Parts: sequence; C-alpha cells; structure tokens
Amino acid sequence: MMPSLRQLVLHRLGARVLADELAARRVTSEAVIRDCLERIASREETVRAWSFLDPELAIRQAQDIDRGPYRGTLHGVPVAIKDIIDTYDMPTEYGSSIYAGFRPGADAGCVAMSRSAGAVIMGKTVTTEFAASHPGKTTHPLNPNHTPGGSSSGSAASVADFMVPLALGTQTGGSVIRPASFCGIVGFKPSFGFINRSGVKQISDSLDTVGIFARSVADCAFFLSAISGAFDYREIDARRPVRVGLCETPSGEQASAESRAALHQAADALRADGLAVVEFRLPEPFARLPDAHHTVDYFEMARSLQHEYRKHRERLSPALLSRIQRGLDCRPVEYESALKLADECRDTIDALLSSVDLVITPSAAGEAPAGLASTGSSTFNRTWTLLGVPCLTLPVARGTQNLPIGIQLIGRSRRDAQLLCAGLWIERALPQLADCKEIA
Amino acid sequence: MMPSLRQLVLHRLGARVLADELAARRVTSEAVIRDCLERIASREETVRAWSFLDPELAIRQAQDIDRGPYRGTLHGVPVAIKDIIDTYDMPTEYGSSIYAGFRPGADAGCVAMSRSAGAVIMGKTVTTEFAASHPGKTTHPLNPNHTPGGSSSGSAASVADFMVPLALGTQTGGSVIRPASFCGIVGFKPSFGFINRSGVKQISDSLDTVGIFARSVADCAFFLSAISGAFDYREIDARRPVRVGLCETPSGEQASAESRAALHQAADALRADGLAVVEFRLPEPFARLPDAHHTVDYFEMARSLQHEYRKHRERLSPALLSRIQRGLDCRPVEYESALKLADECRDTIDALLSSVDLVITPSAAGEAPAGLASTGSSTFNRTWTLLGVPCLTLPVARGTQNLPIGIQLIGRSRRDAQLLCAGLWIERALPQLADCKEIA
Repeated sequence: MMPSLRQLVLHRLGARVLADELAARRVTSEAVIRDCLERIASREETVRAWSFLDPELAIRQAQDIDRGPYRGTLHGVPVAIKDIIDTYDMPTEYGSSIYAGFRPGADAGCVAMSRSAGAVIMGKTVTTEFAASHPGKTTHPLNPNHTPGGSSSGSAASVADFMVPLALGTQTGGSVIRPASFCGIVGFKPSFGFINRSGVKQISDSLDTVGIFARSVADCAFFLSAISGAFDYREIDARRPVRVGLCETPSGEQASAESRAALHQAADALRADGLAVVEFRLPEPFARLPDAHHTVDYFEMARSLQHEYRKHRERLSPALLSRIQRGLDCRPVEYESALKLADECRDTIDALLSSVDLVITPSAAGEAPAGLASTGSSTFNRTWTLLGVPCLTLPVARGTQNLPIGIQLIGRSRRDAQLLCAGLWIERALPQLADCKEIA
Repeated sequence: MMPSLRQLVLHRLGARVLADELAARRVTSEAVIRDCLERIASREETVRAWSFLDPELAIRQAQDIDRGPYRGTLHGVPVAIKDIIDTYDMPTEYGSSIYAGFRPGADAGCVAMSRSAGAVIMGKTVTTEFAASHPGKTTHPLNPNHTPGGSSSGSAASVADFMVPLALGTQTGGSVIRPASFCGIVGFKPSFGFINRSGVKQISDSLDTVGIFARSVADCAFFLSAISGAFDYREIDARRPVRVGLCETPSGEQASAESRAALHQAADALRADGLAVVEFRLPEPFARLPDAHHTVDYFEMARSLQHEYRKHRERLSPALLSRIQRGLDCRPVEYESALKLADECRDTIDALLSSVDLVITPSAAGEAPAGLASTGSSTFNRTWTLLGVPCLTLPVARGTQNLPIGIQLIGRSRRDAQLLCAGLWIERALPQLADCKEIA
C-alpha cells in the first residue's frame, strides 16, 4: 500500500486530524511517535525544548496503545508535558537542580486524564525555575537568538516546532499566553480551576492555572474537552460574535507599535466582516491589578516554596530568592487588600464582559525579545490571570524581527466553551500567518 | 534545681505556655519531646493515632533546636501532621497502601512554615484513605469503641490525648471540625486558602482546606498566625461579640436532641451574659449546598485521583471507587451549576454574616458514633466548607455516651482573626468541659 500524503508528514498534522487517522487505524501511534521523534532529533540541538525525552518509553506507550482497544479521543496522540507537572514514569525537575532526577509518586491529574483519553506522554518540556522568571535552555524555534517566552518555554516551542501537536503548560503570570504568542501558535489559559491542578507544583494557589498549547483553536478545544470533562467537544462550533470589545487597558502604553498595529488590524478585519468592535476600558481599580498580582504571587510563593527556601537556598536563583523574600516581608494587610481588590474586580469584570461577546487585547508587548536571559514581561497577562477569566491567544501578525505577534481573546469566567466557539470563528476570519505554520 | 510543676506535666501543657518556657530556655525541646513520646508510648496501643512515628528523629530535631538560636514563635514545640500532607523526612502514605513507604520530594508549605517557626515535626497522624470516608485505625481517646471522627482522625486524637499540643489536618467535607468536636478539643478550619496548600495531596481543589487542632482557641490562633503569616498573633485578644446568630439550617433536623440542647444551652449562656442571640436562617438556595458539595467533591476527586484510579484500582476502597465513578459520570452542566450556586451563596452569606458578629451552629450530629467502620457524617460541615468561611469548634457539652459535643462558630470569609477574637471570649464565657481536658 502506498503511504498517503498524510502519512508522510505525520508530525505536521494537528491533533484532531491525527486522532481521526488513529481511531480509524489508518496509521499506528508508533508511526506517529517515530515521526515526531525524528523531527525532534533533527531540531532539538537548536530548540532545546525537552528536559526529559526517552524515545523508547514513548514508543513503548504507543505500541501498547496500538495493541489495545480504542482508548478515547486522544487515542495514540502525542502530548508534551511542562516539567512543573508530575509524571510517575518520567523525572520531574521543576526547572531546578534541587530536583535533578526526582521521580514523583503519581501522575498529575491532567496527565492521568490525558492518558485515560489515550494520549502518549512524549516527554517533559523545559520550564523556567519553578515556573517563575529564571529561564531554561529553550530557544525560539524561528530564531534561536530569541527567547521562546516562558515559563512554559519548552511546551510552546515543541508545539510551534512540530515536535508534538499538543502540550500542557501552566500560567501563574503570563506563562501560557506569552510563549504561545511569541512562538506563533494558539495558547489557551482556561478559567481558573478549569483543568485539574493535582500534581502540579504549587507556586501561587490563587493564580496557578493549567493551560494548553496547540496549532489551532479546534485542537485546543479538542484537548481541553478530553482532559477537563467540563464540556463536550461536539458542542464546539465556530460561532460568529456580534460585539467585540477592544481593550488597551491597563497596560496599553507598554505595547510596541507593531503589537498595537496588529490589534487594530485585527479589529479592522472584524469590522469589515460586519462585527461591532467597541472600545472596552477597564475601570480605574483594574489599573492596580498588575501590582496586586505581584503581591498575591510573592506572598503565596514564599509559603509554597518554603521547603526549598529553608533547605536549598543556595540553589535558588537570585531573582527567585528576592521574590520569596518580598513575599515573606509582605504585610498581611497588603496581601488581604490585594485579594479583596481581585475579588471586587472579578465581580465587576463579569458584568462588564456581559456587554460584549469577547474582548481582544494584546497577548504580549510585541515580538519575542532577543536574548535568552529573560523570557519577557507578563504585563499583558497578570490582570487576566488574577481575574481568572479564560484567555486565548491567536497568531495574527509579524513584527520587525519577522517573529509572530498574537492577540488575546478574553471571555467570561467559566464560559470557556463559548470563548472557544468565538475563537474558532475569529481564527478563520483573520488572515492566516501561513509561514508560522510551516517552520522548517 | 527542683523541677517545676510545669516541667512534670510537659505533655499536658498548651502550645503557648510551652513556647514561653522554651523561649526562656526554662525547659529544653528535648525534654518536651521525650515527655510527649512517653505519653504516646503509654497510649498508642489503644488510640492508634500515628501512621509514622520515629522517636529518634523527633528527638534529633529537638536537640538541633536546643543547640541553636531562637527559631521563631514555635521554637521547640511539637506538632503532628496529618498523613495527607507531605513531609520530606518522613513517609507520607495518604491513608492508602498504594503509597506504603512513599517519600515525597519536599515538605508541604504548611510543614515547612511550621519548621521555619521552630516546630519539631513529631510524626504523621492517621488519615482516612485519601482524606475521604474509608476509615483508618485510630480510636476515640475517651472510648476506643467509638470513632474519633475523620478524616483527620489521628490529628484530632493525638491532640485530645495529650500526645502533642498542636496538629495539622485538612477539611474537604467536615474533616477538621467533626473529629475535633467528637474528641472534645478545639478545631479551626480557616477561610478557604488561608493556610498554604502546597504539598497537600489534592482531592478537591475547590474545597480542600488546611486546618488546625489544639486544646484552646488561643493555641489555635497562635499556631495559625505562625504558619500563615496572614495576621499578627499579638492582635488576637478576647473580644466580646454583640450579636450572635443561632443557625439550625440547613440540616438542623439531623442533629441529635443532645446536640440541639448543647447549642441552645450555649445560646442561653451567651444571652445571660447580655449578648443578643438572634435566629439566623440560611435562605432557600443554601439547602442545596450539601448536595452541591458532593457534586463538586466527586467531580474534582475523580480527576485529582485519576492516576490512582488508572493504575491501582484494585487498591482503592469500594466507597472511594464509587465516588470517583460518580465524579466521572457527572454531567459537566451539573458540575457548573454546583459551582455557580456556591458562588452565589458565597456572595449572599457575606452580606448575611455582616448583620451579626458570628453564627453558632452544631459542629456535628452529636457525639462520636459507636464503631470504627464510619467516621460519621459531614452534613453539618459541607455547607460551610463549600462557602469557604472560617469555622471554629469548641467543646461545650457531653452526650448520653459521656462523649463530647461541640458547637461551631462561623465567621465571614477572610475575617479569621476576628472570629478567633470572638471565639476566645466565648470559650471563656461558656462552662468548661474540664474533664475533657483531663483525659487520663
């Protein structure tokens, strides 16, 4: 039998297409995994997306699945896991030498749910130190002199570079949306708590959110449905929004000219399609959310990482140490005020978002910055993370460095399915960045 | 030098008194630990509170502290840790044979915070299987034919039996308040998220709350301040409430006659002291919270424990398996409705609680039931756990079996310090159960 075109480019296929082929047994999971492994072998020296990869282990999982009955919607599909998330059969190092070779006792809930739906866990992807700011080794797939963003650096890069169609990450500040935007792929930070957090190394309990990387909105929705069980994938169809809010607060002035241009071009394209695009301003108290986020983050991190701080202080980066110290020095009343402000703004944003179908806003300040010493700023993400609302980034433009720029779609809390339906429609309405999808 | 009376009964002292003696170096931590270990040695065969206890390890910690500088407010004070909470130097088995001998990679945040404040981690206390309903081996310190309550069975029993002055537990349904009430001690379930949850085996992310066992309200406040950093212990003083709500909804009809009598006697005593005690009724939608709690609990547990369900199904109890199965079968819309109801009730309860200084309500249906096959019902706790409000139980009466009965004090969310201040006053105003404090 002649191989079909699809079978020649398995690592380039999206998750749903792969899942269809696999479910129909037109292709084996082993063939998919081997093709992805070849892609990794040819690119990993440059991209450095993986903190752990055992080809034999991935192939064995695939063979098991190929031999067995149909497992579920992710039957045989490879998935990458950010190394802040526990896996029982692979080391989990949290981006820190403290945990070199550490083997957790169990899979995280989101990993076990992936496996129960039939996924092959391909390996662990590079995270910054404890999903905070100190960078890992990963480079930008389109230009190795630039950061891929973080903290989910390896998850974003591995999906963007066609090493896997799907990856799990986490966002405490901007760690899903920013790297997805930098790498030119789709990233989804669901509503707070939407994906189970058991076995995810806790940094800030009020903020940590498990998120998803894929190369299309449909694949995002497909994966999210399988592992959360919080909506039925068959309910997700492109749905044309009527009113879209255009939001440049609270940090608009920190966006680069090209990031602002990308946002306004998207708005113009939606207007041309007949949508009402209206100005959406966050009221004054929201301007204090990016700082409130830091207060909550540092206060909680100082307690979550108290063991590492007590026992391994010399192995923490100066940046992390200083955050922990700020968290320990934070006065209780400051922390309580930050939580209270967030609570009040959560009530307000829900009412405000009721007046539109969704909001569009920059995903990041602009393109991925040059250099690997920083993974970029979370300014455009901290507000939304603290609010707990779902955020979806789509690659829509390129900047002066020829690197991708994303826009972020924001929905109402727990209306993740609705945001994905609108996102599907907008993804089709906006010009495609075809070259982003064809990284060589 | 003659030993003082205090030094002869070290294991009977409360945490603050011990901390004072230790800080002034009038007694060594080693002496305290050895005295507690003797108490344990004489009683453990009956009470079975411990899942792990290494006397040498506890003594070594104490010696280290005795040799070193002053560590913090818990300097040299022994603390017991429920075995659902990770410890880096002791096995953590989560009440399941799946984790026999398992060693986590780090201390939980609340354990590390205890150590940073100078505590000696005495050992691990018995939990029900994954802090759910399948009981452990612990018996009631006052009558070994009765349950001590659960899921924090060993933590409640060890404090009630004078093995340690302080213990950490967790509450997902009623797992702090119920065993504390049964065992005749003070238990505090703080506001949701008040004590850091890193390293606590996650069961239900929306519900799991770390809590405290002690033999006085002052000791509770003392411990809570040290490990949360969320208020200053020096701000906690007995404060006379003006208006107290008397709440017998939503489950009042399930309380035993003696539990109701205890509640009304407490109300009468407060009235006699000049307080206004007014009826406090939860509005209709709150009657649906106990069921909504189950929906949230099972939906989330099914995902949190997905690894154990996948890999070790035969080692889970039938009761737990059936809960997980219910969680997997739960329709997304049911789960979302339960979350929505909880959110709406959280807004309502905050307004309702603003009309009083606190609410009093039964801690449990009555005395600790006979037998060890069940740890009792969480009916009187699930509503408050789901609401996330702080709950403090005080031992106030005895039932027909001569076992303790508690009443529960409820405060506004994040006003934990205020509730403790009122609790201190009420503890003094109500008749003491002196014999509960003198278990032989």
